[in-house]
Amino acid sequence: ELKDHLDELNISDVEALIDELPEYGALFIETLSVNRAVNVFRILDFPTQERILKRLPGPKISEIINEMPPDDRTAFFSELKGDVVKQLIILLPPAARKEALALLGYPEDSVGRLMTPDYITVKQHWDIARVLHHIRKYGKASETIDVLYVIDKDGKLLDDIRIKDVLLADPDTKVKDLIDNRLIALHANDPQEEAINVFRMNNRVALPVVDEQDIMLGIVTVDDILWVANEEYTEDMQRIGGTEALDEPYLDVSIPHLVKKRAGWLIVLFFGQLLTTTVLEHYESQLASAVLILFMPVILSSGGNSGSQASTLIIQAMALGEVTLTDWWRVMRREILSGLLLGLILGSLGFLRVCTWQAFAHAYGNHWLLVGAVVSLSLVGVVLWGSLVGSMLPFILRRLGADPASSSAPFVSTLVDVTGLIIYFTVATVILTGVLL
Amino acid sequence: ELKDHLDELNISDVEALIDELPEYGALFIETLSVNRAVNVFRILDFPTQERILKRLPGPKISEIINEMPPDDRTAFFSELKGDVVKQLIILLPPAARKEALALLGYPEDSVGRLMTPDYITVKQHWDIARVLHHIRKYGKASETIDVLYVIDKDGKLLDDIRIKDVLLADPDTKVKDLIDNRLIALHANDPQEEAINVFRMNNRVALPVVDEQDIMLGIVTVDDILWVANEEYTEDMQRIGGTEALDEPYLDVSIPHLVKKRAGWLIVLFFGQLLTTTVLEHYESQLASAVLILFMPVILSSGGNSGSQASTLIIQAMALGEVTLTDWWRVMRREILSGLLLGLILGSLGFLRVCTWQAFAHAYGNHWLLVGAVVSLSLVGVVLWGSLVGSMLPFILRRLGADPASSSAPFVSTLVDVTGLIIYFTVATVILTGVLL
Ligand SMILES: [Mg+2]
Ligand SMILES: [Mg+2]
Ligand SMILES: [Mg+2]
Ligand SMILES: [Mg+2]
Ligand SMILES: [Mg+2]
Ligand SMILES: [Mg+2]
Ligand SMILES: [Mg+2]
Ligand SMILES: [Mg+2]
Ligand SMILES: [Mg+2]
Ligand SMILES: [Mg+2]
Ligand SMILES: [Mg+2]
Ligand SMILES: [Mg+2]
Ligand SMILES: [Mg+2]
Repeated sequence: ELKDHLDELNISDVEALIDELPEYGALFIETLSVNRAVNVFRILDFPTQERILKRLPGPKISEIINEMPPDDRTAFFSELKGDVVKQLIILLPPAARKEALALLGYPEDSVGRLMTPDYITVKQHWDIARVLHHIRKYGKASETIDVLYVIDKDGKLLDDIRIKDVLLADPDTKVKDLIDNRLIALHANDPQEEAINVFRMNNRVALPVVDEQDIMLGIVTVDDILWVANEEYTEDMQRIGGTEALDEPYLDVSIPHLVKKRAGWLIVLFFGQLLTTTVLEHYESQLASAVLILFMPVILSSGGNSGSQASTLIIQAMALGEVTLTDWWRVMRREILSGLLLGLILGSLGFLRVCTWQAFAHAYGNHWLLVGAVVSLSLVGVVLWGSLVGSMLPFILRRLGADPASSSAPFVSTLVDVTGLIIYFTVATVILTGVLL
Repeated sequence: ELKDHLDELNISDVEALIDELPEYGALFIETLSVNRAVNVFRILDFPTQERILKRLPGPKISEIINEMPPDDRTAFFSELKGDVVKQLIILLPPAARKEALALLGYPEDSVGRLMTPDYITVKQHWDIARVLHHIRKYGKASETIDVLYVIDKDGKLLDDIRIKDVLLADPDTKVKDLIDNRLIALHANDPQEEAINVFRMNNRVALPVVDEQDIMLGIVTVDDILWVANEEYTEDMQRIGGTEALDEPYLDVSIPHLVKKRAGWLIVLFFGQLLTTTVLEHYESQLASAVLILFMPVILSSGGNSGSQASTLIIQAMALGEVTLTDWWRVMRREILSGLLLGLILGSLGFLRVCTWQAFAHAYGNHWLLVGAVVSLSLVGVVLWGSLVGSMLPFILRRLGADPASSSAPFVSTLVDVTGLIIYFTVATVILTGVLL
């Protein structure tokens, strides 16, 4: 009866059900047909997969691991600990075992890890009838038959043709008449992130993967690219907020783990921020001026805010390939100009604020004009500086081989706070020495 | 010769070429065959599309608009000004014109705007031979033939079947033998963002779109979903950095436009931050204490940083559907606990900092222990408060119908700065009154 109910559900519904009733996860997986069980298992998040695996009987585990498509198997094995992988991999027949090890041999986050070796190849001299016969024979084992790959006798990839073109062609057409000699292929060692843009710009359901000699190694399908895009989104969002990437859904992460992922950056930023204390200790007389203190938070934050804007704009543009390392100078010129304009806007507002309070409450004494000048000039300087730091940091990080998304809003605002204080108190010293200081 | 060269390139290469040589964009589009021209045109960013359109001769524009797939036409028309759309739409034959207007009738960012009405439908009683004959006849005009849709005589969608299953089936199989009565369909008025997760969780190349009566209206293909995911990524990243979404690649936006998109939030945040000035004005005696001022920036920023962490974690989890509105209480409990732990970590570090400086430089006089207590207790309070504000703000925004991603890092840290000051000076007043104050 449970089986009948589960069979009526889409795999995404079964996944949602397991999320709601975690204790029945293993039972649901056991009840489904192997094929459906695998389709559900592959979309579960990793902690759930691991929990279910521990509860399944040995033969069922073997069945699932064997039925799993090679690319999903790689993804699952990649997350598991080494000794668990060893235990699971011996459940596979020798050929599949070799294949699994080969796929795991590609670097993490490389296109190789997304590959499936199940695809259909055809030869140039075949006619449509032979192609269709070939599909009927080998299509079952193929991940997709939407695209067929034309290879030569050495396994070198020559072109790809779409099943649509095959089905719509005259029966006596040859494969070589269908090829257009335009080929897009991924390289096994390319980063997965770049593959997203290749798929997006070329409107493909699957793309072939080749090695340095153009020998075809496998294919990557667009459904897996949607998962990569999703993972990149998650990683970038979390890094930009100043957290290490969580690797698990927020609600599934244990509190100690969550704290661990957040504490690292918080501590680093805390020590960075402590520099503001050290800087402040150098400005004894300025600290004695209450008026200067009043505007300290708003001036520092304005720099941090313009820096957060600039860094996220650049991180986003880099992720999409719109901005590359060589664009740094173009970006810098743009940010100098817009940082200056934004600084002038906030500077004028700051000046107005001082004038207003002075007009109604005589808040800043006789030297209110000078106070206004300090506030507004500092705002111009700090906002300009924030835009520059925020926009250049992603370039520096990428240049150093780090993730540009690590130039998080908190990181940028900490950098800008420390230097912003120096800007503020320098302007104040120049303008107010002998007057208020 | 130019045509020969262009014909050797993939469409993504032509796009890159147009990016590099913008002044030749119109020439390249004119030189390509209509079909290839359309494929290039649809992946150009909007400002480039608009610029090229202005330079193309009338007949070429008509050719391109007519050849463009209906979904890409909707996307293009959506960006154009109303009067330009009117001029273009009369270039279409009546049927296509009606169709284009119908598609534009769906709300912005709804699934309806992604639909193409070009797909293949089959009937339950057909056999494989008839299906294949039907594909050969109508497949050319269809966006995809990877999936076929089974409808009844009223146009109601019954099921979808994959071309793979058709090709691998016995020739005398009937369509009704291939259907599994499991169907996933999108609704025309659903938000596009939700469609990303439906595709991701169900491993489909295309999904059907129905109205309230389950009448089939069109299909959405996964290549367009990759663009939606991309747009959502861009929008969320930019909002989280405190910018209005740009709608155009960073390098293509003019400086005035860039400043306009950034100034709005910067000004709002500036006025928000000015509240810190107002708050500070209420703490005259506290401002006279240089020691309290020294730690002000580090304490405020720690709250802002933990708030940025919390808000990005929740925004990301909401975008992926991992956290929904009803989870607010679960999230709040988690954030109270982890905020407290993070606060204790930073609080201890703050205390250590005071002890160290005191030991080596007697920096804080006789009451250094009380100063340490103020700093560390304030850190606990501010970090806890930051986590709470950061995590709850996305819920509040979503509840109000706004984009949770608008709870940007700058927004959260401004909120936390103002309230953090109150926490800090209240703790200081309680502990230090009669001693340092
Ligand atoms: Mg889930
Ligand atoms: Mg990754
Ligand atoms: Mg080709
Ligand atoms: Mg797949
Ligand atoms: Mg796959
Ligand atoms: Mg990344
Ligand atoms: Mg700040
Ligand atoms: Mg471009
Ligand atoms: Mg949108
Ligand atoms: Mg079905
Ligand atoms: Mg398409
Ligand atoms: Mg499309
Ligand atoms: Mg969004």
